[in-house]
Amino acid sequence: MGNLYIGLIHYPVLNQRGEVATAALTGLDLHDIARAAKTYGVERYFVVTPVPAQQGIAARIRRYWLETKAGHNRGEALELVEIVGSYEASLRSIERREGERPLVIGTSARRLDRPQIGYEALRRQLESSPQPVYILFGTGWGLAKPLLERLDYLLPPLLGPGEWNHLSVRAAAAIILDRLRGK
Amino acid sequence: MGNLYIGLIHYPVLNQRGEVATAALTGLDLHDIARAAKTYGVERYFVVTPVPAQQGIAARIRRYWLETKAGHNRGEALELVEIVGSYEASLRSIERREGERPLVIGTSARRLDRPQIGYEALRRQLESSPQPVYILFGTGWGLAKPLLERLDYLLPPLLGPGEWNHLSVRAAAAIILDRLRGK
Repeated sequence: MGNLYIGLIHYPVLNQRGEVATAALTGLDLHDIARAAKTYGVERYFVVTPVPAQQGIAARIRRYWLETKAGHNRGEALELVEIVGSYEASLRSIERREGERPLVIGTSARRLDRPQIGYEALRRQLESSPQPVYILFGTGWGLAKPLLERLDYLLPPLLGPGEWNHLSVRAAAAIILDRLRGK
Repeated sequence: MGNLYIGLIHYPVLNQRGEVATAALTGLDLHDIARAAKTYGVERYFVVTPVPAQQGIAARIRRYWLETKAGHNRGEALELVEIVGSYEASLRSIERREGERPLVIGTSARRLDRPQIGYEALRRQLESSPQPVYILFGTGWGLAKPLLERLDYLLPPLLGPGEWNHLSVRAAAAIILDRLRGK
């Protein structure tokens, strides 16, 4: 079974006008996605932002629940959070832990012209291969091109009965982890 | 196919000490769960709180996105929100729309001694029967006994590879909707 890593990318992502931008950190993204990561056996949850002040906010939230409120289950989840300045830094951290490059998987609410992997196929790959898997979630209006070009595969958009799928990144991350590791 | 309804219950729920209590409204519960509801074809999303001031906050958020920011996809989602004072009021609203009582389904992060229905079985029931289904999500520390006794069935806890499952109600609602209506 391969170890699973996730990254919440604040740069490079798209803004509302389709330009490459840096998105602001949302406190609840830390909590909600950490709790989903802990539930679904994720090894490490990277919060990726190049902005030092935002890294500081994330670190303060993490420290508060790990130290001041020690023993609370929010701390058990936030322990998985690693705050890094770039995608490359998160990749290096995984390579240091694993001794190999992970399979890098992107997510998007839209259909994009990139090599695809289905949820069932990725679930089977995680269960049957020892290669680690790193899944990227974009904040703002989604992962920007410089990152899309680094992906091995893209997961298809989450859909219900229709075509409307404006989920929060918190909800999308939880659903994808459940599809890959839910019992 | 039966119509699907969901309710976010702020009373009666449990507090940290296991007492019956009223939980405070969380703004992001409105947004995130409405967006998941819209994605997965939910008919109506009931926000259930007996506190008039909290009903007012929910109504103000809904109005802001539907009127001041008309045309934004958040409004399309929040349009599904109906703010009511009690579980009974939400049930009456469903009965008025549907002309029959829905199957009432509870959710819990813990195993409880109530009649269970599995996710696959409920998915099949929704697809094959015209009876509406109403799923209740508890805020705070989960649905309290007076409501648990009103349920037809309880869905089992969401689990990953282990036993730790302290998901936010936002994440749990998104995952459950995906399990029941995801493509």
